[in-house]
Amino acid sequence: MENISRKTFLGMMGAFALQDAPRGFAADVLESSEVRKIHKHIEDHQPEHVAKIQEFLRQPSVSSWNLGIRECAEMLRGYFQKMGCREAELVKTDGLPGVWAWYDAGAPKTISHYMMYDIQPFEEKRWSSPPLAANLVKMAPFGQVVMARGAINSKGPIRAFLNACESIIAVTGKLPVNIMFTCDGEEEQGSPHFHQVLEPYHNRLKTCQAHLTPSPSQNRDGNVAMALGNKGIAYVEMECHGARWGRGPQKMPIHSSRKAILDSPAWRLLKALSSMVSPDGNKILIDHYYDAIVPPTAEEEMLVKQLIEKFGDRVFASERQNVKAWSNNWSTAEAIRHLCFDTTLNINGIWSGYTGPGSATILPEKAAVKLDSRLVPNQVIDQQIALMRKHLDQHGFSDIEMRKLGGGDEWSRTSVKAPVVQAVLSVYKKYGIEPAIWPRSAGSSPQAQYTRPPLNLPACGGGLGHGGRAHSDDEYFVIEGNEKVGGLVKCEQSMVDILYAYARWAGA
Amino acid sequence: MENISRKTFLGMMGAFALQDAPRGFAADVLESSEVRKIHKHIEDHQPEHVAKIQEFLRQPSVSSWNLGIRECAEMLRGYFQKMGCREAELVKTDGLPGVWAWYDAGAPKTISHYMMYDIQPFEEKRWSSPPLAANLVKMAPFGQVVMARGAINSKGPIRAFLNACESIIAVTGKLPVNIMFTCDGEEEQGSPHFHQVLEPYHNRLKTCQAHLTPSPSQNRDGNVAMALGNKGIAYVEMECHGARWGRGPQKMPIHSSRKAILDSPAWRLLKALSSMVSPDGNKILIDHYYDAIVPPTAEEEMLVKQLIEKFGDRVFASERQNVKAWSNNWSTAEAIRHLCFDTTLNINGIWSGYTGPGSATILPEKAAVKLDSRLVPNQVIDQQIALMRKHLDQHGFSDIEMRKLGGGDEWSRTSVKAPVVQAVLSVYKKYGIEPAIWPRSAGSSPQAQYTRPPLNLPACGGGLGHGGRAHSDDEYFVIEGNEKVGGLVKCEQSMVDILYAYARWAGA
Repeated sequence: MENISRKTFLGMMGAFALQDAPRGFAADVLESSEVRKIHKHIEDHQPEHVAKIQEFLRQPSVSSWNLGIRECAEMLRGYFQKMGCREAELVKTDGLPGVWAWYDAGAPKTISHYMMYDIQPFEEKRWSSPPLAANLVKMAPFGQVVMARGAINSKGPIRAFLNACESIIAVTGKLPVNIMFTCDGEEEQGSPHFHQVLEPYHNRLKTCQAHLTPSPSQNRDGNVAMALGNKGIAYVEMECHGARWGRGPQKMPIHSSRKAILDSPAWRLLKALSSMVSPDGNKILIDHYYDAIVPPTAEEEMLVKQLIEKFGDRVFASERQNVKAWSNNWSTAEAIRHLCFDTTLNINGIWSGYTGPGSATILPEKAAVKLDSRLVPNQVIDQQIALMRKHLDQHGFSDIEMRKLGGGDEWSRTSVKAPVVQAVLSVYKKYGIEPAIWPRSAGSSPQAQYTRPPLNLPACGGGLGHGGRAHSDDEYFVIEGNEKVGGLVKCEQSMVDILYAYARWAGA
Repeated sequence: MENISRKTFLGMMGAFALQDAPRGFAADVLESSEVRKIHKHIEDHQPEHVAKIQEFLRQPSVSSWNLGIRECAEMLRGYFQKMGCREAELVKTDGLPGVWAWYDAGAPKTISHYMMYDIQPFEEKRWSSPPLAANLVKMAPFGQVVMARGAINSKGPIRAFLNACESIIAVTGKLPVNIMFTCDGEEEQGSPHFHQVLEPYHNRLKTCQAHLTPSPSQNRDGNVAMALGNKGIAYVEMECHGARWGRGPQKMPIHSSRKAILDSPAWRLLKALSSMVSPDGNKILIDHYYDAIVPPTAEEEMLVKQLIEKFGDRVFASERQNVKAWSNNWSTAEAIRHLCFDTTLNINGIWSGYTGPGSATILPEKAAVKLDSRLVPNQVIDQQIALMRKHLDQHGFSDIEMRKLGGGDEWSRTSVKAPVVQAVLSVYKKYGIEPAIWPRSAGSSPQAQYTRPPLNLPACGGGLGHGGRAHSDDEYFVIEGNEKVGGLVKCEQSMVDILYAYARWAGA
């Protein structure tokens, strides 16, 4: 969805502490001989597992270049078939294909699992190892890593999960849960057609008990932040153009001396935008913009209280070098609350006219801005966008064009009490990690397509392991690991643990 | 000075009509056998004159690339020496060299003459004929033209003027006036050091009676717009940065979800800018910004009245396709007045954050804008910029950085009654052209360095001939011409006429 991925975002929140022990969990499952055998199988087959990750990473799947997408989808379908899925098929959309697969273990529980198999573009010459070579390289302090576009976001973790599943099947004959896989080939484009991948399977997905996507979630210090949902995001682009306005330059920039007798679309856009926020840029002045917001739930308040008490300023540790003061000089406690519960109106970018070095003397014929608004319960993307439109119209800016960008991720929420969450927490506990639990991420994700009607699935992710530089050069996924950060073996083992913990969870 | 050159700008104002006959002019000078012989000499030597233009154009002089500047300055000095100048020398500056030359004819009158010998950069592959080849090509409806970077801006006209001077000297032995040449090698950079070229010669230049720079001034229809000066220009860049503000992201963009707890430099710049102008973007709200402005003189009012009565909407003919309505739905008459007499505050460019296709979710750490303000008598660049600074400070924006761009061209004014202007008008009259006379151009130029203290010279330019696409690809200067537009012969002949008209002008 977003150019800074959810994964990167979660990394920004790195912090940890000890959580209350999950209740009702049959802890001995994770120490059972069955699980131990599977862990041993993973250890014994690491070279093959690494090779499978490399194979998947070497298949290009750059959605914005339409490079290798279909081939990658076919490769993924092949993996599902080989794993023993009863169904594995490409799903047509108005864009690039999705993939659906169903693994039927005959188990009492079924989980929904999300995968994105497309990757960001790359500029090969900027990489220290070619982005499609998927070479194993040494990287301090992690030891060996696999370096490739998609290494951590998200083809490395996808293949690691399939490796974990294959090890379970090799040892026990079948998975402890049934899995419905839904896979997106346009995530890096904002998942514009992913609803078309899900819709044909809604009735099937409704039979799941949870949406569970194990994935490496440690930051570089081994800490974990867990968000029980996310904010929604309304992303729009507005453009003021002389031609639609009927004033100022109509077709192209004009000599800036003409400002004496011509109106300026750039000044107009600034005035329109300025009318939308308070002088400090923080309070949204669009009528009714806050009306849909409901107070935090008791559970959300409890979680925030715990975050503040147990983690405090450590939740912002990785951001401190880029931040001096929060808005209104809020304390850490206030900042945590506002980050969880506030809607926003942000300028991602604004541009008009000449922006190069030195001077050019033009009166530009147009000006544009990219705005995003993070949404909290019960704000709805299209309703908030409609309020923006109404604001423009009522303030005399009806000529300013506004268009929605992105697929439109609504806010999502899962209770900490959900068995799927408790199962993941139990696995962190086993490894001595207590994640910082946020009631929601301040960012956004497509998770609401699973957690809200019609599917209403509780959702959770997590697991050991680490990777970084998603969307950047030299993207990596840790293979070796160190005492703080799990390598591929620990990553896959924790995925096994999560499946078993959820499958055997007494309360589930 | 400006990316859209004064020449282009004048072209935008193309229109013509019949002017009252200049008074006190000995019209027979232009029909004298001496002038006729010189005209004949120009006709007979056209091939050599074209070749000299080509030679000059083939010598690169791209100031922004520092390509060929010194060689071109030396070539120009050589031309002055060959023409018989008593002095011809390169002038050191803190940047690229200027050139000074003095032609002493022992005549009663001395004129100052300005040349810019540097040229804009070019992208060779976009040209239909190589920009340094100076090939002669056919271009409808002008017949043969010379195509090269600098063809019209301004090495073609420079060499044409030198050709005209050489023809005079060839026929009569000497020029009818003495000339002090001052030449700029950094005009395309905004003439940042040109004052250093002039200063050593101030005492010499003070002995001139006028600043006269004949140059091809017809638009593509043969019409001429003449501006008796120009507005000044204050050009600034403002930047709001989180680090200077001490709020918002400090070093780099941050994830846009952080807007919930972080202030935005982009919103801040918008609020600061918005405070500077009225809701329609046209009235400047900076305290005292209009205080220095004095009412138009009686002569300016008269000239504007004539412009309106004689030319009306035709003065805007070439802009009509890009303009639907003037500010406040002004009539043509009102627009002409405001274009002559109003100061401005214009956004040339504004930028912050992500401005590419699709969506990126960032809270940018900085935002910047390029503003220009056109200045009229008696506004002074540095005083107006000080008012902008004071406005920012008084409105709580003292952290917003502001820096001046460009050399700073002040407003310039010459009376229509000045002999040098009347001499040029007499030449247009001879050829049946009546220029649209503007009290000032709404654009800007370095002319004030000659017309205001300490030199106080009346200034004028003009002449037949045409060229186009300055600063663009396939720049050209018309060699052949047609019934409306003078070719090189007419161009050089009109330059001769202008020198003679001024030299023999009864009132001068």
